[in-house]
Formats: sequence, C-alpha cells, structure tokens
Amino acid sequence: MFKARMKMEVLRELVEVISTLVSEVKLSVSKDGVEVKAVDPSHVAMLVLHLNKGAFEEFTGEPTEIGVDVEKFKEVLRLSKPGDEIDLQYDGGKNRLVIKVGKVTRHMAVVDPAGITDPKVPNVTPPAMVVVKMDELRQGIRGSESISDHVTITLEPDSFVLHSEGETDRVDMRLQKENLTKLEVKETVKSMYPLDFFSSMVKSITSSDAVTLHVGNEYPLKIEFSVAGGKGEGRFLLAPRVEED
Amino acid sequence: MFKARMKMEVLRELVEVISTLVSEVKLSVSKDGVEVKAVDPSHVAMLVLHLNKGAFEEFTGEPTEIGVDVEKFKEVLRLSKPGDEIDLQYDGGKNRLVIKVGKVTRHMAVVDPAGITDPKVPNVTPPAMVVVKMDELRQGIRGSESISDHVTITLEPDSFVLHSEGETDRVDMRLQKENLTKLEVKETVKSMYPLDFFSSMVKSITSSDAVTLHVGNEYPLKIEFSVAGGKGEGRFLLAPRVEED
Amino acid sequence: MFKARMKMEVLRELVEVISTLVSEVKLSVSKDGVEVKAVDPSHVAMLVLHLNKGAFEEFTGEPTEIGVDVEKFKEVLRLSKPGDEIDLQYDGGKNRLVIKVGKVTRHMAVVDPAGITDPKVPNVTPPAMVVVKMDELRQGIRGSESISDHVTITLEPDSFVLHSEGETDRVDMRLQKENLTKLEVKETVKSMYPLDFFSSMVKSITSSDAVTLHVGNEYPLKIEFSVAGGKGEGRFLLAPRVEED
Repeated sequence: MFKARMKMEVLRELVEVISTLVSEVKLSVSKDGVEVKAVDPSHVAMLVLHLNKGAFEEFTGEPTEIGVDVEKFKEVLRLSKPGDEIDLQYDGGKNRLVIKVGKVTRHMAVVDPAGITDPKVPNVTPPAMVVVKMDELRQGIRGSESISDHVTITLEPDSFVLHSEGETDRVDMRLQKENLTKLEVKETVKSMYPLDFFSSMVKSITSSDAVTLHVGNEYPLKIEFSVAGGKGEGRFLLAPRVEED
Repeated sequence: MFKARMKMEVLRELVEVISTLVSEVKLSVSKDGVEVKAVDPSHVAMLVLHLNKGAFEEFTGEPTEIGVDVEKFKEVLRLSKPGDEIDLQYDGGKNRLVIKVGKVTRHMAVVDPAGITDPKVPNVTPPAMVVVKMDELRQGIRGSESISDHVTITLEPDSFVLHSEGETDRVDMRLQKENLTKLEVKETVKSMYPLDFFSSMVKSITSSDAVTLHVGNEYPLKIEFSVAGGKGEGRFLLAPRVEED
Repeated sequence: MFKARMKMEVLRELVEVISTLVSEVKLSVSKDGVEVKAVDPSHVAMLVLHLNKGAFEEFTGEPTEIGVDVEKFKEVLRLSKPGDEIDLQYDGGKNRLVIKVGKVTRHMAVVDPAGITDPKVPNVTPPAMVVVKMDELRQGIRGSESISDHVTITLEPDSFVLHSEGETDRVDMRLQKENLTKLEVKETVKSMYPLDFFSSMVKSITSSDAVTLHVGNEYPLKIEFSVAGGKGEGRFLLAPRVEED
C-alpha cells in the first residue's frame, strides 16, 4: 500500500532525472520513503534515488513495488501548475495507481515490476571529488558539445578541467581550486565519458545550484545531488570510455 | 458597402474561433453589425457569431456578403500589435477588401461568397446547462487528451463531470455544484463528443473567463461565449458521438 | 598578430549581419581595427563592415587575414551571456584562433583566407536616400512577405513607399516625409529587390533604431547602419531585379 501527497515540483525533479535514463521505472516503496534504481538500456549509466518520507507532504507506505510508465507522469505534471500538490494512491489489488491533481483524477495502469530491469548497483568509490557550480558546469558542457561526443574530466590537486577535442578544434574549461566550493584530490585523475549522457544527466538536475563529481582514473563517474530541497538524494553513475591508443 | 474600424484584439478573437472550423468564411454584413456562420468540412461542428455595431470603433454597413480567406486575416493580424486599430473597407465594385494597419495597406482579393457553404443552423435546445471556468475546463481537457480521442460530458443535478477512457487508463474531472457559477440540471444527461473538436473549440475562446455548455442525452453540445468584451456573442454546436454497444 | 577583447553584444551584431550572406568570412585585421567584406554565393548581395579599434575593449592588431567559420562564432556566443566579454587571440604561426569566454577556452582552427572570395566592392552612389525607423520598415516587410518574393522601393519627393504585388493581393506601406527622419529625393526613383535578401538584411541589423536606404532607378540598393554603438559601420549592397515588361 502506498498513499502520498507531494508538491508537483518534487515529482517534476524526479521525472526529469529518471527520464534521462529510462521510460519505465520501478518505485520501491517502504514505510520510510521511496527508492528508485534505474539503468539505461545500453548499461552505460545508472541512477539511484532515495526520497525520504519527509520529502512528501503526506506519506503512508508499506513495502511494495510499483512499475510506472514515466511518460504518464509527465502527462500528469502537464495538468499541474507550480505550487500544486499531487495525490498518489496505490492499492495493489486493482493494479491502478490513482493520481489526483486539482479536480482531475487519473486511474493509471501500472507496469509489472517484474518486467523492469533491477540494476545491481556496483560499489563505486572514485578517489577524487569536486563540487562544481551548476552554471559553470553547464557552460563547460555547452562548449564541449560543439566539438565532440566525448568529454574528459581531469581533477588536479589545484584545479578541475573539462576538455573536449574534435578533429580541428578543442575546448577546455579550467576552474581553479580557489573558485571551487570543494576539491579533494591527492593525485591527478582523469577519465573520458560519453558527452550525451553526461550532458543530459547534468541538465536533468534542476534543483541544485551545485553538484558533486567523484572521479578516478578511467573509472566510473559518480554524480551526487540532492532532491526535494534536501529531503532526498540521488546519484548517477556513468561508465568511462577507455581511450584506445 | 462595409466600412469599419476595429481593435486588433477583436479581429483576433474572431479569427481564432473561425479558424477552428474553416479556412474560408462568409461575413454577412448588415446595418447592425456582422454575422458569421460556418460549418466544418465533415459537418460535425458549427459556429454562429454575431458582432454588434458596438463591437467596432467605427461601423457603417449595408447588407452585403464578403467571402474571406481566414489565413489572410491572420497575416494582417501579424502586422499589428496589441492596441492597434484595423480599418476595413469593402466596396463590392472592385471585389477588394482594403485593410489598413498602421502605415500598411493591403488590397485583398475576396472569395465568391456563393462558393462558401451556408450552413442551416439546427434549432438545438439541450435540457441541461453549466457555466464552467475556462482554466478548469482546459485542465480537464488536457487530462483527457493523454487518454483518448473522445470525452464524455455528464451533467448531474449536483456536479459536472468530464470523463475519458483509454485502453488502460481513465481520467475524470468532477466539479461540484458549489464550485460552479451555474448548474441547471433536472435529470442527469450524458453525451460523448470528439475530443479534437471540443478541445480546439474551447481553446479558441480566448476572451472569456467562463463558458456555458448546454448538454443533453446523446445530443448536440452547445457552447456559448461572448466576444468583443460582451459586444458580440458566439456559439459552437458539436455533434455527439453515439456509443456503439 | 591579433589580440582583442570585445563585448559579446558586439560580436553578436557582427555575426548576425555576416551570417545573412556567408558561412565563412575573412577578417582583415590592421592596427586600426577589423574590416570584413563578403558577397553571397549568388553574387546578389554584398556586405562591408568596418570596426574601429574603439569598438573593442582592448585591441592590438598587425596586418593579417583570418578566415573564420561563422557557425563556430555562433557556438562561442552560445557560451556567453549578456554583458560577457570575449577574448580573441590569433598568432598566425599555429593557425589557431584562441577564444576565451568566462572559464572556457576554445582553440579554433581557422580557414585559409585564400579560399574565401574577396569581393570587389563596386562604387555605388544612388541618387536618393531615406532614413527609416526599423520597426516601421519591419512591419512593411512583414506585410510584403505574405504577398510576393519581391518588393519595390519608391522614393518620391514627399514619401517613401514599399510595395509588393501578388497574383491577387497587393500591400503598400507609405511613409510621408513629415514622419521620416530624413528624405532626400530630387526626382522619384524606383527599384525592385528580392524580398528574401532585403528582409534578412534588415532583420540582421539589431543594434540600430533606424537605417539609411540609398535608392536609385533600377539600381543597387545601399543599406547603411552603425554597429558597436557607433564605433563601427556597415553597409549592405543589393542588386535590383529588373522588371521584364
């Protein structure tokens, strides 16, 4: 059983990060909140999201799994306006998720959660980390997008570098330690990542002013961010592209 | 003969409702104002518009019929900005409608009114009626559009219900009598209508905060609205879709 | 050698007028500023732009020619926001133009200037001229665009007329001398021009409230405008379309 009321802004945050990777998702409800794990069809990128009970205006949950078509959540969001609250109710018996926005009620067929890939999230602990302001990161990404399909992230003891190289041009964004909220690097690390995933992940994080990147040498990237005004947390994992020499 | 000056906002209102149904329209001018009747090519929907003399800034009319390509009116509107006044002058002799916006004059070829269908408007008197706020109605329509090509309108003695049913999902919007400006229902009535027409009709009515729906049992829908700040009035008729059992 | 810092707004003005005609352009740098000459592939339209040293925040130049892909300048502009300053540095040796916006640096391959057409700008001195407000000119152009692919400009001793004629409709915009900033006409002159070029030229001039048109009889049109807040100047030339009788 699951019964909750949430701000449309919180649902929108979730839908944005989730729809970056998948079109169907499994919500794992417990008495403490909701968890989401998702992996993109090519198994390059992964998402883990925890939403505490406190992220909801009202919340009652018993352990259950609900499979949802993300596009239908987007349709529900289009019925709402900023400030609206959205009611969700699931009672496994009828296999319907009942959603209310204002005077509109939608009875939504759910997806069999057994048919949705349940990713085994690897234990990824990159050795270096940086906290970057979202608007600087987005500018660097936009610069790279003109140039290449890949981006190289380098963390040096005193700076963060985003680098892309095309056939004729290259783009670099270098942020010095004194301009970064946080930079923890013992030895320089460097990995290359597919830019389309990196870009859409970063752009999907709409609620944070800053984001934490954990980086290693040719190692998966971990992007940490908060959701629901700090009442929830998310992380993306992204496989590196190993350079062929 | 026809010579008038009107606010661009009034012409825009007319063009929006008219272009929902037809691309060519016949303006029937009299000394008291202008009347428009139009039926869509599939004869499912109809429009009747009356614009009093008072809806114009200046107006001189003698009985005449002018056939107009609605797209050309849209082009004229694109030359104007809010607050502009538009001059129209028709002198049957040259078969040209002369339109002035600011410093621009367009000599517009007219369409032979004999070639434009002159719909016989049926006498439709549905037994029940409701006045609904436009923003609530639009939200209900948006909800239905995710689900189905049809929408069922039900007027109950104490509520107004918009309902759509798809293969897996359904959407309902229920407005209670106490939240409605007006609801006059003796016995519950219910009809299903094509959603594309219903939606584009409602969305084309840009000048009203509320709209009056007259509903019967498997009966044509009548939508009444005012235009030109109350100096004109319009009504749409929409044939029901009879459910096959 | 070329090293300059400029407001993004100035670069954007240049890119807008240049990209109306060409996708690659040659910047001719001198110690006094930058000059651009361009001709469209069909040799119907031409652009000459002078940017004084004073148009830049900082400027050091020695005579050199730099070929640039205009699209790459657009990409750089997308990295900037209003108020940003953009650094450009070119040192012929490495054949790279280095551009900095905020924390982002782009090393941009240049195009061999020898491969870019260097138009011989004809000495065009039309006998009549008018200064027209941009918003009036744009309205007249929008009116013409509904009607025809061509526009006729007439300068009469007491008015400026823009005229387009289609198969069924025609559009005129007439501005009387008293409503024009300046009108210098001895004898009425009249020329027809391709509307697509005329329209995109006028629309590309984003920094002026008014524009000067020099017109003759079946003679090239000269459009003069200022850029960089008066620290630079541009002119378009547009070949007339000679009417066949």
